[in-house]
Amino acid sequence: MEFLLEKRQSIWMKGNSVFVVQQNLLPFELKTHECKTYWDTCMAITDRMIMGTGAVTVAAGFAMAQAFVAAQSREKAVLIREARQDIENVGPATMGINYAVDRVYKAGLNHPEDSKKEAQKIMDELIACSESIGTYGNKLLRNNHKILIHGHTGWLSFMDKGTALAPIYKAIEKGKNIFVYVDETRPLGQGGYLTAWELNQEGVPHVIIPDNAAATLLSRGQINSVIVGADRISLKGDVVSKIGTLGRAILAREFGIPFYVAAPRIAFDVDFPFGKSLKMEESPQEEVLFQTGTDINGNVVRVQVCASGSKALNPAYDITPSQYIRGFITEEGIIPPTQATIKKFLGL
Amino acid sequence: MEFLLEKRQSIWMKGNSVFVVQQNLLPFELKTHECKTYWDTCMAITDRMIMGTGAVTVAAGFAMAQAFVAAQSREKAVLIREARQDIENVGPATMGINYAVDRVYKAGLNHPEDSKKEAQKIMDELIACSESIGTYGNKLLRNNHKILIHGHTGWLSFMDKGTALAPIYKAIEKGKNIFVYVDETRPLGQGGYLTAWELNQEGVPHVIIPDNAAATLLSRGQINSVIVGADRISLKGDVVSKIGTLGRAILAREFGIPFYVAAPRIAFDVDFPFGKSLKMEESPQEEVLFQTGTDINGNVVRVQVCASGSKALNPAYDITPSQYIRGFITEEGIIPPTQATIKKFLGL
Repeated sequence: MEFLLEKRQSIWMKGNSVFVVQQNLLPFELKTHECKTYWDTCMAITDRMIMGTGAVTVAAGFAMAQAFVAAQSREKAVLIREARQDIENVGPATMGINYAVDRVYKAGLNHPEDSKKEAQKIMDELIACSESIGTYGNKLLRNNHKILIHGHTGWLSFMDKGTALAPIYKAIEKGKNIFVYVDETRPLGQGGYLTAWELNQEGVPHVIIPDNAAATLLSRGQINSVIVGADRISLKGDVVSKIGTLGRAILAREFGIPFYVAAPRIAFDVDFPFGKSLKMEESPQEEVLFQTGTDINGNVVRVQVCASGSKALNPAYDITPSQYIRGFITEEGIIPPTQATIKKFLGL
Repeated sequence: MEFLLEKRQSIWMKGNSVFVVQQNLLPFELKTHECKTYWDTCMAITDRMIMGTGAVTVAAGFAMAQAFVAAQSREKAVLIREARQDIENVGPATMGINYAVDRVYKAGLNHPEDSKKEAQKIMDELIACSESIGTYGNKLLRNNHKILIHGHTGWLSFMDKGTALAPIYKAIEKGKNIFVYVDETRPLGQGGYLTAWELNQEGVPHVIIPDNAAATLLSRGQINSVIVGADRISLKGDVVSKIGTLGRAILAREFGIPFYVAAPRIAFDVDFPFGKSLKMEESPQEEVLFQTGTDINGNVVRVQVCASGSKALNPAYDITPSQYIRGFITEEGIIPPTQATIKKFLGL
């Protein structure tokens, strides 16, 4: 599995199969899973094997290509349109899914094999995005800065250096001392499970904090900036992201700490002008009521972590209005969160 | 164990022993533990068998009485003063500990047996406080109100009806429909483990939410008010409470939702004029890194819930400045959070 850590890539296509790092097993097991059909790839997203905006975007593109290859000809248009619908339904909050599916669909209509090339191209472009986001974001970070991170936004979630972690990796490359506070990010625990695992691999100094501790650290001036990723960004600059992002943004503004959203151009949605218009996804309550860990013998065990008889509410995403955001760290520079600058950035 | 649920009491003294409901085993097991010495009682607080301001306050009073009874005469003054120090060190954030220890100490100096009577009197007074807090707090709640709760603030944590839960229990008694959103309250999970268990016992409609979900529910107007408890309140109205309280208060104010602190007079500290002056407790990092639950066979298992090699930071409390608080729900009415009104309330 060493090659995975070398490549910093949690998903790839080989032949007609998509291979993914099973993020749902980390940090306890590093395993890959083969998705032989577009439906397998959809299920890998549903089952949380694939998590994170970039990984899900690339998976959607690969899945669309798998549907073309399986249909073998563009005459099977109904099958392919059904597949497209299935893939889009897997993650309605993530803009990248629509983007990737649309591009691969158009390429595949030309020739089924072109769909695979297009999906690979999307992946290569995201790798380049990550590098550029790191370069621009690095300019915001000074030596000895302490950064609060929410969710998982490194190479597991995206590609190469990730999104919100890219400025940090780049700053460290440039010789700066950077310390990372990692929000546990319940209920799925992407911070404590995945970001912490990734930062350990990369040797980045960090500490995990309970989500409840962010406010007091921000209030005591122990954090210099907050950087998060995004699933979808409206023309107005409102951001759909991992549950808990809204709270961090409000707290950061309250204490005058800059709050940045690191995201590529493809996260911006011209059809999503106002934040309130998006229907919010609700995830299964079991994600709150149960948690997975290793017992004293190292066995992976799923345990119930709340009172029997209680139900849980599990909104997967929240919407952070642009007023709380200092700027977007994109592959083309830092964009202020106004409709005018975003339109200009998108060439509208 | 039925009698426990009848009495709504998580701690009591019988002979020279203190008996406690082992809150650290709930919701999986309902067991009591006998503390034969003041030191046993201190350890029961350290080991999280006893949690919550009222329960800890009463435990501190009982422990002080146990020290007097064991010393058998006031001539053993050194032993008793050492015991007093030990008890106070068990929970530096909780004002009630100082208060109870001080009262019981003075009574014991008169006659060792008086210490037990005084400790019992403190408990009886807290039961009366809970009833009054419920009566005043109920007036703030309308039919069909939805309340957000943080930590555990019912009878397990306090006595009788608790603090922040008392207005809710009272409103339901009066025939109002009340719905409770229960913050999971990581890292110890007092919401998902204890509050949810207690609300299930009492048949109160509720749902557990991840701590990260509070912001989006508040932003969408799904919550009518937030009520929390307090460990210590300054003369200025700044509140030391369970980690995460500060974040909820800031979010509530941002969205215009009233934020109340339910606490008895004894939580106010005349020697604590400004919030910033208190040294904050840090709890063991294992509370973040590990979590306890039941596996598929119903066995209670402790599992590691984060990447090996990462450390965690675990501040136990935070300080909520008075500017975010709508009012204090006390046993003598609703007190606005200003130094003048608090001084008047305390008769200063």
